[in-house]
Amino acid sequence: MVDTDTPRPKTLRVALLGAGNVGAQVARILLDDAESLAARTGARLELVGIAVRTIDAPREVELPRELFTTDASALVRDADVVIELMGGLEPARTLILEAIEHGASVITGNKALLAVDGPSLYEKADAAGVQLSYEAAVAGAIPILRPIRDSLAGDKITRVMGIVNGTTNFILDAMDTTGAEFPDALAEATRLGYAEADPTADIEGHDAAAKGAILASLSFHTRFALEDVHCQGITAVTADDIAAAKDAGFVIKLLAIAEKLETTGATGVGTTGVSVRVHPTLIPREHPLAAVHGAFNAVFIEAESAGELMFYGRGAGGTPTASAILGDVVSAARRMVLGGPGRTETTTGVLPVLGIEAVTTQYYIGLDAADQPGVLAKISALFAENGVSIETMRQTVHRESDDGGNGSAELRIVTHRASEAALAATVEAIKGLDIINSVTSVLRVEGV
Amino acid sequence: MVDTDTPRPKTLRVALLGAGNVGAQVARILLDDAESLAARTGARLELVGIAVRTIDAPREVELPRELFTTDASALVRDADVVIELMGGLEPARTLILEAIEHGASVITGNKALLAVDGPSLYEKADAAGVQLSYEAAVAGAIPILRPIRDSLAGDKITRVMGIVNGTTNFILDAMDTTGAEFPDALAEATRLGYAEADPTADIEGHDAAAKGAILASLSFHTRFALEDVHCQGITAVTADDIAAAKDAGFVIKLLAIAEKLETTGATGVGTTGVSVRVHPTLIPREHPLAAVHGAFNAVFIEAESAGELMFYGRGAGGTPTASAILGDVVSAARRMVLGGPGRTETTTGVLPVLGIEAVTTQYYIGLDAADQPGVLAKISALFAENGVSIETMRQTVHRESDDGGNGSAELRIVTHRASEAALAATVEAIKGLDIINSVTSVLRVEGV
Repeated sequence: MVDTDTPRPKTLRVALLGAGNVGAQVARILLDDAESLAARTGARLELVGIAVRTIDAPREVELPRELFTTDASALVRDADVVIELMGGLEPARTLILEAIEHGASVITGNKALLAVDGPSLYEKADAAGVQLSYEAAVAGAIPILRPIRDSLAGDKITRVMGIVNGTTNFILDAMDTTGAEFPDALAEATRLGYAEADPTADIEGHDAAAKGAILASLSFHTRFALEDVHCQGITAVTADDIAAAKDAGFVIKLLAIAEKLETTGATGVGTTGVSVRVHPTLIPREHPLAAVHGAFNAVFIEAESAGELMFYGRGAGGTPTASAILGDVVSAARRMVLGGPGRTETTTGVLPVLGIEAVTTQYYIGLDAADQPGVLAKISALFAENGVSIETMRQTVHRESDDGGNGSAELRIVTHRASEAALAATVEAIKGLDIINSVTSVLRVEGV
Repeated sequence: MVDTDTPRPKTLRVALLGAGNVGAQVARILLDDAESLAARTGARLELVGIAVRTIDAPREVELPRELFTTDASALVRDADVVIELMGGLEPARTLILEAIEHGASVITGNKALLAVDGPSLYEKADAAGVQLSYEAAVAGAIPILRPIRDSLAGDKITRVMGIVNGTTNFILDAMDTTGAEFPDALAEATRLGYAEADPTADIEGHDAAAKGAILASLSFHTRFALEDVHCQGITAVTADDIAAAKDAGFVIKLLAIAEKLETTGATGVGTTGVSVRVHPTLIPREHPLAAVHGAFNAVFIEAESAGELMFYGRGAGGTPTASAILGDVVSAARRMVLGGPGRTETTTGVLPVLGIEAVTTQYYIGLDAADQPGVLAKISALFAENGVSIETMRQTVHRESDDGGNGSAELRIVTHRASEAALAATVEAIKGLDIINSVTSVLRVEGV
């Protein structure tokens, strides 16, 4: 515990909670690089203990056995800096609250906890005047939260689009490169260790949604919870979708998108709000996010003055994530040594949270239709009736025989910006046409 | 001036030196966004004056005439925060020193001054306990210096490669896209406003060298001056070089590269040092830097734990650069309000500065040779004699007549890593061969 009335501490006691993939690397660096870390912070960072569930569990890195303890609570009460890398909601939340109460700085990479309880944790840390840092919670090694909070503090962010889940980017990239179907690409990702045994949180978009909520909170000075995020995963993306997108100059990425929107209510009064959503998205192949391959992450930011920015790097992995954790540790330690701002977040610009119904995007629609005269006219009319404007429409005819008319026509339509509701109504109406065999895909388009 | 013994100031007095492209936008934002900036900093940022050479000069933005003054020195003595955007060495240097002496925080985008006088300015700011911030000096709007200094503070950077000059990236990108020769691409850049009337500082690499020195200083906690940077511009790059690079899967970019190197001295004792260099460089088309088009900038960082990171955005322009300036202003103001670390830079890891002779890179060599038997053998032998190993060699024969032997052969060679000296000796030896018509290009290769 740091008492600002006593002389400056020469040594800061660091407690580590969790010794998994990331925790073990953080411990190794704290031990191996003690000297250079001390030079950079002005204080010795002494790793006083590592709280684990099982002391003799196998670990990736060999660490001094005497550091391990199963009494996390006692360890927390004895530390100046607490690094929480246990994951999950409990006991992580209780231990973080104990650390805050004892005046310790807290560093965590626990995106699930922050997405659910972030707002109340930030408030408690602010009230106690301690640091709560979580650079590692979003996009692993990529320094993204500090640039948003500090470097862009004099600017106004209008939109954030992130590839923030490496597993799904690996899968979509593999589908794009090899033409594989989703189940095969997922199996390959699992085999190579890019997907967990239970990949649900990744492929259903839940992990990206948690990170989207954290990014949105910081970018728009507004507190978002997980349930504010519209979330759609990648399990329905087919090899045909990818091929059609490629053909049209697009690539499909799972994006977490947070944006400021102007909406007009029933009364005609304009409101500014923020929406957060996660869904598979077509982006042009020349867009900087299209060049993010494999398990890499990237966050693309649009700001009023800065224009377009992108931050790229490794979004997961023990050592890369440890880099972000140590950056937070050094920053917290510097502040403890030199004194300084304890604020973790500003919420001065609190904006209303908008649902997906307030969002407009361009859409890509794939249709399998009968190859007969008048099809294009009927479909175009339905778009017009529903107020959805078509940007491009492309027809490919597959003749089954030479007599014409027995074959099918593949239609690929890209719309101008439309609301979810208008688009859904259009798609429903199209499905009702007897000339339509099936609606093969409906995907959002961004970055055009 | 801020006196830490008196109650916290509710208003910070901001002085702006220069009302050019960037300065005018900074003034506009300070005036227009006063309310949101106050909410974010906890203090009102009052623009108390703008020092200019000519009060009635035409400006991009209309600003209140009463703010203008020609007495920069008086303005500086009356301010808590001084923003220097005059450029050039003097009077910028003298005014910054005056501001530091008066206890003001200083924000500057003056890369030329920092590259020459940075070390002494940082020391004076440290000694006075004031902030000296310069995010805008490198890569315009891209938050790069703060991530290096803070986010990567617990990591060890091994290498930085930056596209830090938009003019040359625009020219090389245009040459790559259109096949134009350098003079034509430069003319187009000038016409579109991407190149200045006198483009020397850009095309000769001097601007990139200044930014390279600043990046290297921060990344390696070692102070570099402009004369420590090996510098080669893009004026000698031909359409043929670009075409040959393209053909081999590369793109040519002007990179500023700073890297940590292990060298073995004459005594056999290893030394770790840092070298900084600017030169046209071949990089693979799949490399993230290859996707940086037009006048955009990007900085690619390799760190021990984080692995590969890239930061992308606009490197110039009034409004984008103003974003970086305002970020520094808000950070400085937050610290003045809340108190906090005044250190601008750590130089704990001071490493020796190494010259270009310590660097090894891969090389691309283009040769125009006689088309006769034994050419490849003779050339290969010369590489071997000089200790340079060939990775790939490709020969294209241009027959002038059908009798064979009167034509010429175009050879494209990519070497393994070699030193500048070994490569230079090889090239000299090759030039001496009577079968060689000319050495058409010698370019470094990175990122393979």
